[in-house]
Amino acid sequence: MSKDRLIYLPLGGAGEIGMNCYVYGYGAPGKERLIVIDLGVTFPDMDGAPGVDVIMPDIAWLEERVDRIDAIFITHAHEDHIGALGHLWPKLKKKVYARRFTATIGRLKMEEAGLPTDAIITVDPRPKVVEAGPFKVQFLPVAHSIPESAALIIDSPAGRVVHSGDFKLDQSPVVGEPWNDAAWEAVAAERPVKALMCDSTNVFSTHQGRSEATLAGPLTELISKATGMFVATTFGSNVARLKTLAEAARASDRSICVLGRSMKRMLSVAEQTGVLAGFPRVISPEEALEIPRRNLMLLVTGSQGERRAASAALSRGKYLGFEMKAGDSFLFSSRTIPGNERGVIKIWNAFSEMGVRIIDDNNGLYHVSGHANRPDLEHVHRLLLPDMLVPMHGEHRHLAEHTRIAHEAGIAGAVAVNGTMMDITGEAPRAVEFIETGRLYLDGSVLISAMDGVVRDRIRMALNGHALVTLILDEKNDPMGDPWVELMGLTDLGKGGRPLNETIEGDLAEYMARAGRKVLRDDARLEEEIRKVTRQVAMEEIGKKPEVTVVISRLVAE
Amino acid sequence: MSKDRLIYLPLGGAGEIGMNCYVYGYGAPGKERLIVIDLGVTFPDMDGAPGVDVIMPDIAWLEERVDRIDAIFITHAHEDHIGALGHLWPKLKKKVYARRFTATIGRLKMEEAGLPTDAIITVDPRPKVVEAGPFKVQFLPVAHSIPESAALIIDSPAGRVVHSGDFKLDQSPVVGEPWNDAAWEAVAAERPVKALMCDSTNVFSTHQGRSEATLAGPLTELISKATGMFVATTFGSNVARLKTLAEAARASDRSICVLGRSMKRMLSVAEQTGVLAGFPRVISPEEALEIPRRNLMLLVTGSQGERRAASAALSRGKYLGFEMKAGDSFLFSSRTIPGNERGVIKIWNAFSEMGVRIIDDNNGLYHVSGHANRPDLEHVHRLLLPDMLVPMHGEHRHLAEHTRIAHEAGIAGAVAVNGTMMDITGEAPRAVEFIETGRLYLDGSVLISAMDGVVRDRIRMALNGHALVTLILDEKNDPMGDPWVELMGLTDLGKGGRPLNETIEGDLAEYMARAGRKVLRDDARLEEEIRKVTRQVAMEEIGKKPEVTVVISRLVAE
Repeated sequence: MSKDRLIYLPLGGAGEIGMNCYVYGYGAPGKERLIVIDLGVTFPDMDGAPGVDVIMPDIAWLEERVDRIDAIFITHAHEDHIGALGHLWPKLKKKVYARRFTATIGRLKMEEAGLPTDAIITVDPRPKVVEAGPFKVQFLPVAHSIPESAALIIDSPAGRVVHSGDFKLDQSPVVGEPWNDAAWEAVAAERPVKALMCDSTNVFSTHQGRSEATLAGPLTELISKATGMFVATTFGSNVARLKTLAEAARASDRSICVLGRSMKRMLSVAEQTGVLAGFPRVISPEEALEIPRRNLMLLVTGSQGERRAASAALSRGKYLGFEMKAGDSFLFSSRTIPGNERGVIKIWNAFSEMGVRIIDDNNGLYHVSGHANRPDLEHVHRLLLPDMLVPMHGEHRHLAEHTRIAHEAGIAGAVAVNGTMMDITGEAPRAVEFIETGRLYLDGSVLISAMDGVVRDRIRMALNGHALVTLILDEKNDPMGDPWVELMGLTDLGKGGRPLNETIEGDLAEYMARAGRKVLRDDARLEEEIRKVTRQVAMEEIGKKPEVTVVISRLVAE
Repeated sequence: MSKDRLIYLPLGGAGEIGMNCYVYGYGAPGKERLIVIDLGVTFPDMDGAPGVDVIMPDIAWLEERVDRIDAIFITHAHEDHIGALGHLWPKLKKKVYARRFTATIGRLKMEEAGLPTDAIITVDPRPKVVEAGPFKVQFLPVAHSIPESAALIIDSPAGRVVHSGDFKLDQSPVVGEPWNDAAWEAVAAERPVKALMCDSTNVFSTHQGRSEATLAGPLTELISKATGMFVATTFGSNVARLKTLAEAARASDRSICVLGRSMKRMLSVAEQTGVLAGFPRVISPEEALEIPRRNLMLLVTGSQGERRAASAALSRGKYLGFEMKAGDSFLFSSRTIPGNERGVIKIWNAFSEMGVRIIDDNNGLYHVSGHANRPDLEHVHRLLLPDMLVPMHGEHRHLAEHTRIAHEAGIAGAVAVNGTMMDITGEAPRAVEFIETGRLYLDGSVLISAMDGVVRDRIRMALNGHALVTLILDEKNDPMGDPWVELMGLTDLGKGGRPLNETIEGDLAEYMARAGRKVLRDDARLEEEIRKVTRQVAMEEIGKKPEVTVVISRLVAE
């Protein structure tokens, strides 16, 4: 049928860095068969979502079309690509395809959520093909900061799409397959690439990306010169980095001890799936405590300053028997993600107080990024020569810049943020529909929509404090006693040192005395008036208008 | 008297960057005459102090010794040095000495707070001497990112101290006096320097600092090549930068319009006090709106992403008739202070959506720091050759690094964080007392202590939500009706879609039915039990334990 079309729809990850979720569809408009790429999370902060555990894309659009979904694919096991699996899978209940390492992590997530682990299918890389409705999908191995990341080669009757996933050009990635120009050229030679959906994270980095292997020399030198205990943190999933660090430690006669659940789990899955071989022996905390500090290297979680991770715990004092001391070294083999600076700097200063030497990435000497930089992106554009490019995995500014680069190279391209459905059947991407997208919050054990107002109320209480007014009326609508005021998150004393709640109570009692019968019998109006008086008095007394909750109790004759 | 001693005590700014306040004292131990240097503020964030307007040092220690204070000195007019003047001066009520520009800003602050402006005394720079008790103080002009910054030469019977204030080595600062080695050498030649208290902000910047004058060329080139409207933001107090930007705009045939109250005020005070001459003519917003975009340059506030400043307002849409359009350029001639990244990036992305070209400092091409870098600090150490160095104006890691540098150069030095009283009478600094220091929050119109728990309660409500339980008991302590639950910042529905408040009410009613007489007549115990049940039910239903406020009303026979 000539009217069939190929569509692309990001539901998360386009216009932000985090919670990736992309949809491809093929078929008659409105009846396309769909596949879903990645189900990721993003992390909340106090400014935007206080008290929330984790944020994920709102997939209501997919839920309403669940019978049109043929499969879910996961490109790699970073939380921003797989983290929502246990929370969102029950809404879709489709087969999930991934490479071995990713699939293993996926099954652990399903197990923890009490979901069937056999929903996850392990797939070998290209030339292995997964058929999903009108789509044929292959996993093309790429280097990234986690084992077995993959680009997806997505074939449809309308042409071939390459979905890059997260990747970098690394010819010596320490763990996993090196970058191979020929393999990418072969993809385009086999069938012309209609569209490239491409990682945009590092589009503003103008130098060529560096290989993971360049770190071994500097890290070995750094660690061999250290005197006391040496502690290093990086993402627990960066198994290649852990290997480099561990080998540098061994070269300096240090035994290695790993602290932090997520890091141990990643190492264990990496060994179990065969992606990591020859990792030096790791000793237990108990054994480590018996070893001279000079002969010890701890690998720990918490490179982003996470409050509950091992780095932060060590910065607060003793942790699992370990304690940082003057003369020890602490290396952040990582880059601080924008927004996490405060937490990281807090840890640095705590270590500084202990006399610990703090080492950061030292302008890339001790850390390299897992994403392709701008010249690398341009190289990939040239290898694939796609008809069009739609940037993904970036904030708006990244997507806009990446599109500009494509245009400069004569490639059609467009910015498609979350919710923008692009028809990519023709020569250039064309926005055809805008889907209302949003965010789901995991809050305790409940998923709530970002639009519910729950979190907005929390932010308001945090900014303004909360005043509670209770009053009791009898069956004739006469007040019984005076209104009672409790304050939370507000100062006790107002002007002239008078207790604030008493001042408000006094003014409310006066108000009640003059309130008309009509107001007294109307809960909504009475509540509104009480709220108004409370806010006015607080404004005069302390210069703030609190949130106000009014509870009116009416006694009825028994 | 041989027992007299010279002391130094930071109350703010040492162990943090912000809210500077330092005390020097001379006399018999416990009876020293005191002078205060700077009364600054720092800015709150959602993580630490939601809803708070501004944070300042708790000066309780000074208040208790107010009759021993001889004077207050302000080094320069940045908010982290002068911002608390209007709030804290009433607690001290001493003469305040500052150079003309700073004094003028200080008087405006006093006026706004309804305080006597004649408490502020304008002082000419060295050789002019201010006598304050046993101290003789001179203002030594230094370059910084605001006009008329000064180091203080503090002479006491125990020797000469140099308090650097914030400074950089700039031989062509565009506005104000160029750096002059000879002037600093003369200070040490005139009388040996016992102690240098020194700015540590840029101790980790290993290259020599660059002059403000280096920006004129690149900025002129950038602005002349821009096509649409050109907007630039920087700190409103960076009058030299504003002048460079304005001159670059004039060279490109652009008229200049200034948006943002604080920036206008700084420019006006700078012109009025004679520190700024030859600033190009500024036009009003009304005039500006009549001019072709290509011929317009806006200078706006909000370089740190402040929500209410002009940059953020323009990123949200129309502001004072101005609207950013595709093809316009927006320059951040500034560095983002750690912690402000989220706000700044939000603005970048909003502009990106509008098609505006965003330009950041471009690795220093369009911005230079106002603080001395490490080689510059070392240069100053060599010029003054102090007996000892006590670093200030830095987080712990900055102070520790600066101390290390001093030690390497053979200078005695020690880290003194807020509250550490150092005896600097001898050859080396010696900690003699630890004062409990803290922070005061301006919250609305009230000053509250960080220790009061008010802000802690706000954070708890933001993280956990707030449940309010009201119940009424009659004169016999029998419940009248069932407990009533209102929720704020919590999801409406619990497990199985049941309304959460009704589930809690049901369980509370059951509890009340079985509660013993002893509990029912004891408000404290009843409240505790109600709180416990509420938190348990919420945990089961939604996986969160809310803050709970219980209001028990007891009806008494009339």
